[in-house]
Amino acid sequence: MESPLNVLSPFFLYLCLLLALFQAPTPCISDPNPLQDFCIRTSPAGQSAATCKAASAVVSDDFFFDGLTKEGNTNNSFGAGLTQATHVQFPGLNTLGIAMARIDLAPGGLNPPHTHPRGSELVMVLKGAVLVGFVSGDNVLYQKVARRGELFIVPKGLVHFQKNTGKGKAIVIVVFDSQFPGIVPAPFALFGTKPAIDSQLLAKAFKVDGEVVTSLLSNFGN
Amino acid sequence: MESPLNVLSPFFLYLCLLLALFQAPTPCISDPNPLQDFCIRTSPAGQSAATCKAASAVVSDDFFFDGLTKEGNTNNSFGAGLTQATHVQFPGLNTLGIAMARIDLAPGGLNPPHTHPRGSELVMVLKGAVLVGFVSGDNVLYQKVARRGELFIVPKGLVHFQKNTGKGKAIVIVVFDSQFPGIVPAPFALFGTKPAIDSQLLAKAFKVDGEVVTSLLSNFGN
Amino acid sequence: MESPLNVLSPFFLYLCLLLALFQAPTPCISDPNPLQDFCIRTSPAGQSAATCKAASAVVSDDFFFDGLTKEGNTNNSFGAGLTQATHVQFPGLNTLGIAMARIDLAPGGLNPPHTHPRGSELVMVLKGAVLVGFVSGDNVLYQKVARRGELFIVPKGLVHFQKNTGKGKAIVIVVFDSQFPGIVPAPFALFGTKPAIDSQLLAKAFKVDGEVVTSLLSNFGN
Amino acid sequence: MESPLNVLSPFFLYLCLLLALFQAPTPCISDPNPLQDFCIRTSPAGQSAATCKAASAVVSDDFFFDGLTKEGNTNNSFGAGLTQATHVQFPGLNTLGIAMARIDLAPGGLNPPHTHPRGSELVMVLKGAVLVGFVSGDNVLYQKVARRGELFIVPKGLVHFQKNTGKGKAIVIVVFDSQFPGIVPAPFALFGTKPAIDSQLLAKAFKVDGEVVTSLLSNFGN
Amino acid sequence: MESPLNVLSPFFLYLCLLLALFQAPTPCISDPNPLQDFCIRTSPAGQSAATCKAASAVVSDDFFFDGLTKEGNTNNSFGAGLTQATHVQFPGLNTLGIAMARIDLAPGGLNPPHTHPRGSELVMVLKGAVLVGFVSGDNVLYQKVARRGELFIVPKGLVHFQKNTGKGKAIVIVVFDSQFPGIVPAPFALFGTKPAIDSQLLAKAFKVDGEVVTSLLSNFGN
Amino acid sequence: MESPLNVLSPFFLYLCLLLALFQAPTPCISDPNPLQDFCIRTSPAGQSAATCKAASAVVSDDFFFDGLTKEGNTNNSFGAGLTQATHVQFPGLNTLGIAMARIDLAPGGLNPPHTHPRGSELVMVLKGAVLVGFVSGDNVLYQKVARRGELFIVPKGLVHFQKNTGKGKAIVIVVFDSQFPGIVPAPFALFGTKPAIDSQLLAKAFKVDGEVVTSLLSNFGN
Repeated sequence: MESPLNVLSPFFLYLCLLLALFQAPTPCISDPNPLQDFCIRTSPAGQSAATCKAASAVVSDDFFFDGLTKEGNTNNSFGAGLTQATHVQFPGLNTLGIAMARIDLAPGGLNPPHTHPRGSELVMVLKGAVLVGFVSGDNVLYQKVARRGELFIVPKGLVHFQKNTGKGKAIVIVVFDSQFPGIVPAPFALFGTKPAIDSQLLAKAFKVDGEVVTSLLSNFGN
Repeated sequence: MESPLNVLSPFFLYLCLLLALFQAPTPCISDPNPLQDFCIRTSPAGQSAATCKAASAVVSDDFFFDGLTKEGNTNNSFGAGLTQATHVQFPGLNTLGIAMARIDLAPGGLNPPHTHPRGSELVMVLKGAVLVGFVSGDNVLYQKVARRGELFIVPKGLVHFQKNTGKGKAIVIVVFDSQFPGIVPAPFALFGTKPAIDSQLLAKAFKVDGEVVTSLLSNFGN
Repeated sequence: MESPLNVLSPFFLYLCLLLALFQAPTPCISDPNPLQDFCIRTSPAGQSAATCKAASAVVSDDFFFDGLTKEGNTNNSFGAGLTQATHVQFPGLNTLGIAMARIDLAPGGLNPPHTHPRGSELVMVLKGAVLVGFVSGDNVLYQKVARRGELFIVPKGLVHFQKNTGKGKAIVIVVFDSQFPGIVPAPFALFGTKPAIDSQLLAKAFKVDGEVVTSLLSNFGN
Repeated sequence: MESPLNVLSPFFLYLCLLLALFQAPTPCISDPNPLQDFCIRTSPAGQSAATCKAASAVVSDDFFFDGLTKEGNTNNSFGAGLTQATHVQFPGLNTLGIAMARIDLAPGGLNPPHTHPRGSELVMVLKGAVLVGFVSGDNVLYQKVARRGELFIVPKGLVHFQKNTGKGKAIVIVVFDSQFPGIVPAPFALFGTKPAIDSQLLAKAFKVDGEVVTSLLSNFGN
Repeated sequence: MESPLNVLSPFFLYLCLLLALFQAPTPCISDPNPLQDFCIRTSPAGQSAATCKAASAVVSDDFFFDGLTKEGNTNNSFGAGLTQATHVQFPGLNTLGIAMARIDLAPGGLNPPHTHPRGSELVMVLKGAVLVGFVSGDNVLYQKVARRGELFIVPKGLVHFQKNTGKGKAIVIVVFDSQFPGIVPAPFALFGTKPAIDSQLLAKAFKVDGEVVTSLLSNFGN
Repeated sequence: MESPLNVLSPFFLYLCLLLALFQAPTPCISDPNPLQDFCIRTSPAGQSAATCKAASAVVSDDFFFDGLTKEGNTNNSFGAGLTQATHVQFPGLNTLGIAMARIDLAPGGLNPPHTHPRGSELVMVLKGAVLVGFVSGDNVLYQKVARRGELFIVPKGLVHFQKNTGKGKAIVIVVFDSQFPGIVPAPFALFGTKPAIDSQLLAKAFKVDGEVVTSLLSNFGN
């Protein structure tokens, strides 16, 4: 009869496979002090694995990213296009506690109210005139129209938005004190979830009748 | 003529006063490793000062809080009452990285969708049956009806809610990995801000017409 | 002769197996800012692995835990029963910086003096009257009898205890600002270690003769 | 009649005085990333204030400390002398996340079992032969006799001790990953507290009769 | 005779004055999780005090900064102009863990090799062609010519530089995962210190003769 | 025909192997609060893997290190020998936020100007007279001759050096508030990089002519 110590036995191979597969997304924390100079993230596309490329294989291009040079697609109902540079798109950022994104806004375009669960956001307008605002925990709205080279800071986790209030296209870059701050877009997190949040619950929350909730839900695919 | 070095001169007294007054709210970070065993917060009511009571004056009651024993007032449109225990109400929590709150829910009562900018939330139902849910960054809704003694965890910064789905009153306690996680109640942060967020901006964000936005704003005092 | 590149060769399978097995307990730090919304811990029972369940496989029950609904067994010399909810029992807590435990105390029951190496503890009494106390670094004892709904905070790393001083059973829940604060029970850490601490060393430390130490050691299995 | 705005009025002076006095112990966290190159702690002796000396007044001696060159007094029941170098004795350490101490041990001398609530400890023996040990959360004792230049690491918050097992005097230095790790000496934190922990509670915790507890308490001044 | 409790006595006024003056620069850490939504830094110019503006006095402009819109002065030996946006210039950044700077480079202009003691740096070229490089702890040089909209990441604490290799002016913005990362410009930190580092020490460090060191020192004002 | 689900198929074995191999260097952060008592680092030599030895296999020797007892080789142009005790040489330090090194200095020996990207450094002289200095961000040099048992603190990330100014050999130990602070030796990071930094860039940075740069580069192997 076969010994369980036989490395060719299905039992061992399954164990090996399962353990290896489970390794992929490692919940390491890189925003505090890193433990090495850098750690180029290596993982199959779409996974958030947090393992390092072998130092001997690291090249200058690992620290370089040109993904923000292209204009984002604003051909949508918000007239807004988001292009991200987190450790997912830019593996060299891994463990370094910082990330960036580019927001293209068509005239009148809007990056709708949203929050970042894990980061403050520093906004710089590169082109156009953009209304940037956030809401404090006391529900006070702080907002300002920022133009080329002007900055606006959004504290960690608060609701904020950017709207193109100028005549032409606008370009905004935003930077975060986290390599993966996350995004919670209010309209989708409230009315576009899968499955949908109970409509009576939403009606009570927003003090509206079922009809309004039904239309809000349908606006976001529910 | 009076010397500027005269400690009785108005100049010196003003300087002293101004500097002293400026000290009150110190933005210290206490969620990481503290630098002393404890630091009982001392400050005028309503301020978020982060200074310590002299160790010699500290007594056992400084570490004790009975503010969560009283039922919260649920006589409001949400049928929900929130009672907090952060370092503001419970100064002994200062620098210790933890806070708690009690939520009373009338039958059908709702703690409307909200986020905490600076903390994860562990929910424990003390009484009744409560639907607890949160929405991930991928807009997936995770929800569960929890009963006496059952727990539900809400990751940092994500939209979540609690609704009493039982017949009688419900009591929930929530704990945070921060002494002051903050609260962003979605309906108020979107439609109840001071000043109001531009109604056209909101209409575009939620894909509704001006009438709906106007009623939503008026529901929350705008 | 077989090539070493043959993936079926024992050499490769051993390597694979060893590497995979070594992965299990990854010492990630999750108390600071996480790098993803959540990370459901996946690992063989009894291991403290810190790897994530694939997002597509995550369900609502991963964020739910009913292990604290059952009364702990107080049929022991301390009349105390501890039931934990850390990331080991409740994988959904992984990376979220918070944990909870339930302590059942028979009349006169005692949770003996202990420390948590990696967390502050917020105590809430759910039932009965419980004497809760801790000792500061200056050896000052702060203690209080807490009742239903009352809170007592124990600063990080300090010696503390809970004793049922009421007539009936008592129930206490404790929460931590760490997903795995650890436990150092003083009587066991001093007299119940494997191997035992040198008895002359203990005699000197507690200023007692060898007989007393011998009995103390035997009380805790040495 | 005197105006309340008169800076010479007792009201203003009292306010000024109270606010200024309240400032002294500020619970700042300096173990994470500091916000300036350095911050020489300035405060009345014995206080743990965390304010900075003006940069213009900082001199090289602020970064220098010779307090560990003197032999500690081992003329006590433990035959041990502790000399500390935390931000209290060495203000230049403030905000830099590190501290040191020197332990002198007479032949047979013992630094009794203790924990540090906020730091790991790296032990280096400078002279003699010293038994260094710690107890894990699983109550496993790890111990080793270390000699000149040898290191032993004690994980954060665990019970540990150092005992001179050589013929002559021993000198040990210990370093911490915190500028103020704190100290909880087990014998004193259990039996030498002010006020004393209830003797029946201690008897139950250590499974001994009242007589033994009474003698243990009296050994430590109770 | 005057009572020491007389608040008008010089003793009390001196005490008040000294304590108040000592308060100014509080070494709080704001890069980790803040303890409030925001904390607008208030302090006399040139000081790094970390106290908050009263919430009631906070206005939208506190979160806005236009200091990076102006071209920096490149009329110097390096052909480089640095304009910073840290919590010193932009008080709204205080406690939010992020900072930015603008570097203007004349044709051939150079931001000489330097390190940031407390932050990683994400570089974005806004105009021109810029050679950006850093050196790892293994002394490997990673460098790349970046153009408009392209990014290059510099890990925390490593030596790096930016040089305009294009025909016209270049503009670079850099962002940090700290509100005050600090700057250590290598040429000045080595040869331009006050007082100068001992010339024999420098000669030995760089393996050159005294003449070369003397000229290097004189190049930087020594 | 073979099914892809056959665990013996090359496809599965390759996948398993690749994933397992990718795991090795995990960029975990251990300087903050650890999530277990300890984690003995296990990994093939030369890798910076951050995985834990199985608790059952951990022995006292895992917490012990004698690598600093041997004199470092000072037979080099600097007359300095560095012996490190980080988690690479001393796996027991892993996740515990502290590291140490021994520096041996021949008479006149120099540890040339360098920075540590991720840690403050506390210096203790064990033997001899050593000039220890660092340069602040304002380019102020703070230095002091320290002798046996005397301490000097170097703030995080600043340029510093140690030089033997005594008659005989000197021994220094340095401790860090990070298990892997990194080292950036200025002369090598500027003139000894692979590939070399552009010589015209260096000439401009140090305001010297090409000849001087050429000799500096050649002094460090370029």
